Order: sequence, then C-alpha cells, then structure tokens
Amino acid sequence: MYSFTNDYSEGAHPRILEALLNTNLTQHSSYSLDTHTRHAIQLIRQEACCPQGDVHLIVGGTQTNLITISTALRPYQAVISASTGHINVHETGAIEATGHKVLAMPATDGKLTPRMVEEALDFHTDEHMVQPKMVYISNSTEVGTQYTKAELEGLHHICRQKNLYLFMDGARMGSALTSPANDLTLADIAALTDVFYIGGTKNGALFGEALVIVRDELKPDFRYMIKQRGAMLAKGWLLGIQFEELFQNNLFYDMASHANEMAAKLKKALTDKGCSFAYNSCTNQLFPVLEDEQIEKLKKDFTFNMDHRVDASRSCIRLVTSWATTQEGVDAFIKAL
Amino acid sequence: MYSFTNDYSEGAHPRILEALLNTNLTQHSSYSLDTHTRHAIQLIRQEACCPQGDVHLIVGGTQTNLITISTALRPYQAVISASTGHINVHETGAIEATGHKVLAMPATDGKLTPRMVEEALDFHTDEHMVQPKMVYISNSTEVGTQYTKAELEGLHHICRQKNLYLFMDGARMGSALTSPANDLTLADIAALTDVFYIGGTKNGALFGEALVIVRDELKPDFRYMIKQRGAMLAKGWLLGIQFEELFQNNLFYDMASHANEMAAKLKKALTDKGCSFAYNSCTNQLFPVLEDEQIEKLKKDFTFNMDHRVDASRSCIRLVTSWATTQEGVDAFIKAL
Amino acid sequence: MYSFTNDYSEGAHPRILEALLNTNLTQHSSYSLDTHTRHAIQLIRQEACCPQGDVHLIVGGTQTNLITISTALRPYQAVISASTGHINVHETGAIEATGHKVLAMPATDGKLTPRMVEEALDFHTDEHMVQPKMVYISNSTEVGTQYTKAELEGLHHICRQKNLYLFMDGARMGSALTSPANDLTLADIAALTDVFYIGGTKNGALFGEALVIVRDELKPDFRYMIKQRGAMLAKGWLLGIQFEELFQNNLFYDMASHANEMAAKLKKALTDKGCSFAYNSCTNQLFPVLEDEQIEKLKKDFTFNMDHRVDASRSCIRLVTSWATTQEGVDAFIKAL
Amino acid sequence: MYSFTNDYSEGAHPRILEALLNTNLTQHSSYSLDTHTRHAIQLIRQEACCPQGDVHLIVGGTQTNLITISTALRPYQAVISASTGHINVHETGAIEATGHKVLAMPATDGKLTPRMVEEALDFHTDEHMVQPKMVYISNSTEVGTQYTKAELEGLHHICRQKNLYLFMDGARMGSALTSPANDLTLADIAALTDVFYIGGTKNGALFGEALVIVRDELKPDFRYMIKQRGAMLAKGWLLGIQFEELFQNNLFYDMASHANEMAAKLKKALTDKGCSFAYNSCTNQLFPVLEDEQIEKLKKDFTFNMDHRVDASRSCIRLVTSWATTQEGVDAFIKAL
Repeated sequence: MYSFTNDYSEGAHPRILEALLNTNLTQHSSYSLDTHTRHAIQLIRQEACCPQGDVHLIVGGTQTNLITISTALRPYQAVISASTGHINVHETGAIEATGHKVLAMPATDGKLTPRMVEEALDFHTDEHMVQPKMVYISNSTEVGTQYTKAELEGLHHICRQKNLYLFMDGARMGSALTSPANDLTLADIAALTDVFYIGGTKNGALFGEALVIVRDELKPDFRYMIKQRGAMLAKGWLLGIQFEELFQNNLFYDMASHANEMAAKLKKALTDKGCSFAYNSCTNQLFPVLEDEQIEKLKKDFTFNMDHRVDASRSCIRLVTSWATTQEGVDAFIKAL
Repeated sequence: MYSFTNDYSEGAHPRILEALLNTNLTQHSSYSLDTHTRHAIQLIRQEACCPQGDVHLIVGGTQTNLITISTALRPYQAVISASTGHINVHETGAIEATGHKVLAMPATDGKLTPRMVEEALDFHTDEHMVQPKMVYISNSTEVGTQYTKAELEGLHHICRQKNLYLFMDGARMGSALTSPANDLTLADIAALTDVFYIGGTKNGALFGEALVIVRDELKPDFRYMIKQRGAMLAKGWLLGIQFEELFQNNLFYDMASHANEMAAKLKKALTDKGCSFAYNSCTNQLFPVLEDEQIEKLKKDFTFNMDHRVDASRSCIRLVTSWATTQEGVDAFIKAL
Repeated sequence: MYSFTNDYSEGAHPRILEALLNTNLTQHSSYSLDTHTRHAIQLIRQEACCPQGDVHLIVGGTQTNLITISTALRPYQAVISASTGHINVHETGAIEATGHKVLAMPATDGKLTPRMVEEALDFHTDEHMVQPKMVYISNSTEVGTQYTKAELEGLHHICRQKNLYLFMDGARMGSALTSPANDLTLADIAALTDVFYIGGTKNGALFGEALVIVRDELKPDFRYMIKQRGAMLAKGWLLGIQFEELFQNNLFYDMASHANEMAAKLKKALTDKGCSFAYNSCTNQLFPVLEDEQIEKLKKDFTFNMDHRVDASRSCIRLVTSWATTQEGVDAFIKAL
Repeated sequence: MYSFTNDYSEGAHPRILEALLNTNLTQHSSYSLDTHTRHAIQLIRQEACCPQGDVHLIVGGTQTNLITISTALRPYQAVISASTGHINVHETGAIEATGHKVLAMPATDGKLTPRMVEEALDFHTDEHMVQPKMVYISNSTEVGTQYTKAELEGLHHICRQKNLYLFMDGARMGSALTSPANDLTLADIAALTDVFYIGGTKNGALFGEALVIVRDELKPDFRYMIKQRGAMLAKGWLLGIQFEELFQNNLFYDMASHANEMAAKLKKALTDKGCSFAYNSCTNQLFPVLEDEQIEKLKKDFTFNMDHRVDASRSCIRLVTSWATTQEGVDAFIKAL
C-alpha cells in the first residue's frame, strides 16, 4: 500500500532529524528565545530580502492562520477568502471561533482576483454589515493552482488602494515557488504582501510554519497572541533548528522540487492516458478525473482522497506527492494505471 | 416627505403607550420578574398553544438571534441560513462574534428548503469542518416572502431526522401570519420549530421580541445568557406591558393586517402600472423594479431604500409599510406613480 | 409594601413620558440617526464641556461596559477593576465573554487607587500574562462611595503615565454628582477620563446610558461594535428623546438630588438609632448594619436586598432610593425603625 | 553556565528520539489516527486503569487547558482555580479568550480545598453572576506542592455533590507521582477526577500532553475542539511515538524520579545551610529564600528564575530540575552555595 493522501505522511528530512539529535542535550532558552531560532529568523529574512520582517515560528497552519487573522482584525472586521480557502472550509470554524466572519467568494480555480475583492467591498457598505479588512490567499492553493507575479501585484494594488491587509498562507509555499509555472520569489512575496508564512509541515519538517510579518502595524505584541492561543512551544528551539536546516544549503527548495517532479511524472502519465484534471496544477497536488471502476482498482494498492463526484461514472481524486515520495511509488502508480 | 423606509419609523400603538403611562409610578420587580411579564408570557403561551414553552422578552432582534444561536450551539457547531438571512448579512457578524460560522446557502427567494439543508450536511463530513446543528429561517423573510405550512413541515422533518434545531426569526411574524398567502398559525409554528420569536419592534411596539423556547434542552439557564450578552433589561416590565397589550384584543394581528393591507394597495397600483417585482411578496415589504428616472421623481416626496440595480436603467427598491402607515401616505405614493 | 430594592423599580419621569407621547406618531430616522438624538448629543457635549466627544446612546449598562471595553482592548489585554466592580461581579462574565480578563483588585471601599493600578502593572510583566490596558471605575461605586476630584486626578495621572485608558461607569453618575461629598463636574470627568457614561436607567429614564468617548483612538467605527453586540436600538430616537429631557431644565440633576435627599433622611434616622454602616456613602445607596431580628420586622412592610452577614446576629442590608422615592415611603421606614 | 530555569531546557530522552528516527520514513496516517497513537492510548488507559477513558495527545499545556475548559463549560460558566493556577496567571488570558471567567481563590500553598470551592459556590447565587462549573487543580502545583489522596478525595466529593467537573492539570504529573510525599496513582486520579492530563513536555518528551477524559459527557466531538483551536497536529504520530516510549519500560516514572532526586539533593544542601523555603515542595521545583548577595553570586554560574522579593535583603528564587539535570550540575550548585 503506497500513500498519495497528503504531503505530511512521513517524518522529516534526515538532515533535520540529525540536527535535532545533535542539539538534544544542550540546554536551550525556551519559548523561541534561543540562538537557533534567532539564526533561523536571520536566514529567512535574508531569503525573503526582508530584514525588517518580524518572523515567528509556529507549530501548525491553522494556529498560524487564526493568530494572524485575529491579530489583524478589529472585532467587527472580516477576512475575504476564496470559497475553497483553507480557513473557509477545513479549519472547523477556527477563524469564526476568534470572532470573525470569513467572506467566501466563489472561486473555480482556488484563486482570488482584484475584481472579487472589489465585489466583496462593494457589498459591505455600512455598520450593519461586517467590514472587510484582510484578504487571505493560499499559494499554492488548496486545489494545486498558484499565483503569478502579475496576479499577486494586482491583489497588492487593490489592497493598498482599499487599505486592506494581504495575507498569504504558504503552507505549500515550497511547492508553489519551485513549480515550473512560478515566476515569484520569496522576496517578491515579502514585497507584495503584508504578512505571509512559509510552510514546513508539508515540506519536510516534523512541523512548523515560519510567519513573516512585513507590515509594521501587525507586529506589536504578537508574542502575546501566540501565547494566548496556546501556540508558544515550550521547546521552541525545535522549530528554530528545523528552519535553520530548511534554509541552509537549499534544502527547502530541493525538497519541494522533488515533490513537484514526482507530481509532474504522475501528471504526464495521467495525461498520456487521456485523463482530464479538475484543476490545472503544476504543483504537488493533482486532481485527475477517473472512472470509478479504475479508482476502485487503484485503491487496492494506493491510498488517496476522493475529491468530488464528477458524473454518474467518474470522480475527481486528489493525489499528493511530497519530499519523501519515492520514484518506486510513482512508477507503481503509473504502472497500475 | 413620507417614509416607506421601514416598519420601525414610528413609536408604538397608542394603547401600548397608554398602558406604560398607567403603570409608570408603580413599583415593579426588575429584570422581567414582574407580574406584567408573567401575564404576557401566559398570553403568548396560550396564543401559541404551547403551555410548556419558556418565553423570554428581549429588546431587539440581533440580540435575540445571537443569544439563541450561541445558547444552542457547541463551539464547533454552525447555523445554516439562507444567504439573504438577517444573521448572514445585516448583523455585523454578531453570530461569528459569538464564535459560530453561519453557513449561507444561496437562496433566490429568501427561503431554505430541506434539500438545501441536506446539501449543507453532506458537505460537512468530519472534524476538519464545522458541524451544522441549527437551521435558521425568517418568516416573513428579508425579501418579503413567507413559508407555507407544507414548507415548514418539510424543514421540521429534515431537522428531526438529522437532529438539527429549527429556529424561526419572527421579527416580521405578524406580517407573515396575517398575509393572504399564509396558512400557518402561531400554534403550528410552536409545533414545528424548536425555538422562534414574535417580533414587536416591527409591529407596533416601542421595542421587544418574544422568544419562545419549545425544545427542552434549549431552556436551562437561558437567563444567564440574556444577562451575559447585556440583554437583560433592568425595567423588564416595559417589555411585559407591551406584549400584554399586543396579545390582548387581537392588537398584534390587527396592526400586522393593517400593514399588509397598505402594502397590498401599493402592490396593486404598481402591478396595474405594469411594474414587476424582484420577489413575490404578500407581506409588508415590496420589491418593485422601477425605471431610475421614476425612482428619482418618487424620491422628491418619499423615502425608501434602494435594494439593487437590475439593469442599466432600472433598479429594485424596497417599500415597507407598517401598523402606522397612513392611507394618505399610500394614496400619495400611488398618485405620484 | 414599599421597595428600597433599587433605583429602577419605577418607569420614567412624567416629562420624559410626555415627550415620548408627543413624538409617537412622527416618522423618525432609525438607528439613532434622528434629530432628537442629535440634539441630545449636543446637550450632553455642552454639559460636559466636551464638544469633540463622540456620544452614543445605548440601552443598558452591561451592554455599554462590554462594548466599550472590547472596543478598547486588543485580544490579550485586560481591564483593571475594583473587586467590587460591576463588571467583575454582576455581569455574568460579560467582559470575559468578549475575551478579556478582568483584573480584580481587592478594594474595601469600592474604589481603585493609583497604587492598586501600579500593583496590577507590576505583576504583569511579559507575554505569558495578560497586559493591563484599561482602568475601570464606577462613580458612584457599587457600595455607594464616590471619587473626589483629587482621587480622579490621581488615577488620570497614572493612566497617562502608563498609557492606560481610564473608563468611568456612570450608571449612578447623577447620584455621585449631586452628592454633598462631591467636588466633580461632568466637565471634570470629561477632562480626566478617556471614556465615561452617564446613566439614565437608574436616574429616571425608562432606560438608556449616554456614553461619551473623549479619547480619539477609541472613536473609529464604534457603531459597528454597537451593532455587532446587538445594542443598536431600531427606534433609537427613544433614547434621544429621553436624554433631551434629562439634559434640559436640569432634570437629570434634580432627580438625582431627590434620590440623595431621600437617602440622607434614611441615613440620619439610622445614625440617630446608633446604627453603623458597612460603607461610608453620601449617595443613594446605604449599607446599614442591623440586627437580624429588626431586619425581619422591616421585611414585613419593605423590600430591600441583603448585602452580607456581619456576625452571628447582624447583617448588612442595602437600601436604595431613587428619583421616585416618596417622602411617605421614607417616613414609614423611619417610623418602622 | 548551568540552568535550573525550568524542566524544558533540553530535548527528549534518547530512547524517544531513537523511536522517532526508526519510524521517520514510514508512511503514517495523519491527525493522530495512526497505529502508534492507538498503541500509546492503550498503554495510558492501562496505566490509569481507565479502559473507558478517551485519550487525546496534544502538543502543549495551554492548548490542553483551553480546549478542555472551553469544551466543558457553557458560555456563562466559570472555572474555579487557585490564585496561583497556571490558567489564572501564566496563560495570557487563554481561558478568558474562550469566553470564560477564571474564579481565582487565594491559596498560599497552590492548592484548592473543598472549603474554597464551597466559598466560590456560595458567592455565585444567580444569573447576574457567572456559574461555577469546573474545578481546576494542578498536580504538582505551580509552587511545587502536591495533593494527597485524602485531599483529592475531598475535592472529588464536593465536586460530585455540587455537580462540578474536576480537572487536573498534570503538566508536572510525573514529578508529583514519584515524589516521596505522594500516595496517589494514575488509577486513583482517573477514579477521582473527570478529566486530567499527563505532561510530556516537562518530563522528557519533545512536547506533548496526554489528556484523559473520564467523564462521558465531556467526550463527544472532542476532536472538533482540538481542530478548531489549531491543536490537531498533522503528523500526530510524533505524539503517539513519544507517549509509547514514555509508558513502556517505566520511562515516564524513571525520568520524573530522577528529577525529584536531583531536587531532593539541592533541597538537602539548602536546608543544611539553614535556608528556608517559601513553599513546602517534595517535587522538582524548589523555592528557597536566599540573601540577595548570595543570589547575585549564584547567577554567575547558574540560571534560574526570581520568584518574589521576601524582604529588603532576601528573595525567593525558583530552582527546577528535570529528567536531564546532571549530577555534576547539582554538585556544582551545592558547592557554589
């Protein structure tokens, strides 16, 4: 049984584990005030050409989303998201639990456009409605698509014009940045958003997301928010050491590239078989549409998620590759096709 | 200038004011523990054939909605609403501020159907998503439509089957129940919902909504919730006296009937002029589609809200009548047409 | 049976009711955007010598407290209160329900001092604890005491120095300002606090508190907060008309003076009988310590609240007078003593 | 420089790291649905003689506290804690951020008694105040003390009688259970509380707390709560593997015993020097009172926290030992004394 269920089925890259082992009996300062975290922050600032950014290392993505959004918004303000956005669908109402409405805009390809943002603004006119104040986007998105530089500039522009914060959820940032369709760098993202994060969990760390706060007004007292939401890891250096490894010797990009390459092989084989895709992805998530009969056969040797029913005899499935996906696993799947 | 902007532009029916005057210098028990409130509760239970109902008199509708919903739901549970629902659009995120997601289902006529409820349930399958637990409907709806007995029975049935609470916002219950299209009684509503309220603010009281909790598990400690949300009126008898008047001598129904009759006259005149309507209403809210030019003319002598643009030259406006709408006002508007 | 239970047992001053009657059938703008509210706001600004203040009229005190505090505080910030403070004890956790800790400082006379504020600040040193940001005081306090100008200046000074907001709950502001022990004016209060409110409910209005926001940074979007918490009254002019009356022809002060005079008579009679008091009050709340036997006798003809047991045979009761307390009621009580 | 600052300054016991290494490239089910977690849960149930307990493995203590408490309480309910309780002081208002008041009872030794619980209940009499519903205790406490079986039975009894939940925060459970003063077992704790957790973070795991829900009514949908608060670890098996190791071959108890032994040596040396202690601890936290001069000298070679000033020339410091504290470190400290 080989799994294409997600990109967090295995532990961490061996170099990361080794680094954890090497520092295991050292006494560290707790709560992310240690030297490894400091070093990791420096590496991330450099990589993002963002020396003034406040960087916080946080265990998980939902935590990072809920802390960031509830820090940015006043109680009556709302966040605009694509209807497919992780915060809208897959976080059990975590944002609403902090008191804020998610304004979900229907999006067929997982992406927000300036026009969709304007539409949300036009609808919310006075104090009888929530006030949209933040735009949340994922890159790569929940359906494997990604933003081009031009698209991100468009969102940046409307957000500046309308005084909105632009927040990029980068749980799968690695896969986006190493995709053949990508024309963005971390530095571009730091320049075009107000706050974003770089996902470790889905790209070869045991866990961890590196949040980069670019906008000054979002920075004060952020550690209070982290603590209050239960997200301040006692042994914070565990995060620091992992991000040190990720941003030394290109490991972050290498792992993401591997995941993308494995997906590309699957995509090519599926395309060759005449298979269509529900979303146009060049990242590590594929959404092929297959005959139910074939899906049942594949399920004997592979695990993956069902995405949605397409018609009476066909469904869309989701295949996810990772830094740890093996060539053998991919070959076996292609053969099984 | 005559206003058709809403049904809460005037004070209260003179009989209500008179009752307030008559009891003004009496010493009352505070916090709704007085004899007038007790009597009002009895009258409402009788009218709804619901002797076991817990009745609470609350100043406003948004308050009533947020208290009721946050009482009924566990932190991870959500309420299903038509996209046009008051809680989804016009309460500044009051429900989300209590921690709960509003699951908005697109509705062209302001009404939820069992099929829409099932759709919401089918989508929310596990602990990574919110858990739908309550169905919120308005009667009459925000676009002037109303539920038939058969429709309400359908919703009751699916809610029982799926273990959901059914909550009816009756801010405009009077107009619904006295509409020519109505086949429901308060007793039917008490039998088919778990909790509902009867609107006073929009039907001739100074303020006040009478919440009736039918379902036993929603009853305990409800006064704690009222107090915590700042909704326990010190001089609670002011609510009791108003609802005593409303449910004595048919005043509640008489006022609503008057509002409906005034609307019916407007509707007939508009129809005679060949005007179409965005929603099919037999209640006290009308949504005629008019030429922009004509709207501008009407604005010289009348106030009303714009609802939405229909096409390049036409818009939908909202006309609302009330217990206090005068025959002269209606005649003037018809003449101006 | 005559009640000294509280100062909200009767309706409103006849002049207020008359004003409501006179405007009952006029069409008003809703949601406090009417001319009466505008006029009331002008009168209050004048009275407080605070032309730049933002004034909002809100139905009740708990509402006003929770909206004001949750507007002022970031999610991790806390409000300092005397342990006897209304927000700490008698609002069913309304402040906590908005997410904020109340830091209760033990106070034997219901009042905060600069030293107590500093103590709270000294204890809360870093992001593992809440951050104190607001100081909440009541005037008169929950135990009938009141702040002198010197005391308020002391609190103002420490708040400025430590960058804290100073918020005065004036639910019983009238009684405080007309007390023989008082040396403050509304203008002083506007000059020395960042936000305060003037209570109508407990001083002869049907309901209503006038919140005055002095500090600019607390002003933006305040109506969003009012709406979200369910506190935006549809027929907002009802509040406007009441405060117009209160601040015309000295009615606000006259009613409070009457309440204080009635209390003073009771106090004198009690003192003459050798009775002691748990708190030193010159306002409309008295806390005499009586023999249980005598309390039982008084209960036959009067209602009042028990405050606390003092020793095996004596208890402290609370006697409250109001604008509507009659000379006859007071005389009867004195006679019964 | 040797640190006695806390018990989470080093990584994890080598056997734990080894287990993580051994399973690193295996594909696991995510979100704690893997076989290691299942096994760990079995081991914990066995150890606690609680086969019916629902066990959830959660990254951190503040998370566990806030999720458990907000699951157990209705919006208007409160949790009773010693004034020194972690939830009252050191979690940045995390409980209040979920909407609940912490009722802090002054405690000189960090422990609650049945009498203190009754006192809290007696004070909160009606819907104008919060309703106490849960009792929160820490074992060992924040000041190093611990509950005896008789004390825990007393709390259990009052909680059953008054229909309160009893929740034990066991962040330092290991140290409590292996203390010479202890007469409790995990099985006792499972029998006497409604919900408790076993701390890994402070006893040799990289991170992780094992929450055991004994009371049936606290069990339903708990995973929804975990997810909503951002506490569902994607690679949940990391927790499972750690707790497997902790509860195999006595590792959990061995590490805690070591910590206690190291503390006992420090305590003996300090006592021998005539030093007094602010709290009477037989666990891994000591609170000696030292001359400021001596503290300054010790600070040259050791790190530790200041607890509080005792008088003009003396302060109380906090010394914490852990599974990783070395005999050399302890010897050096004793020598430095």
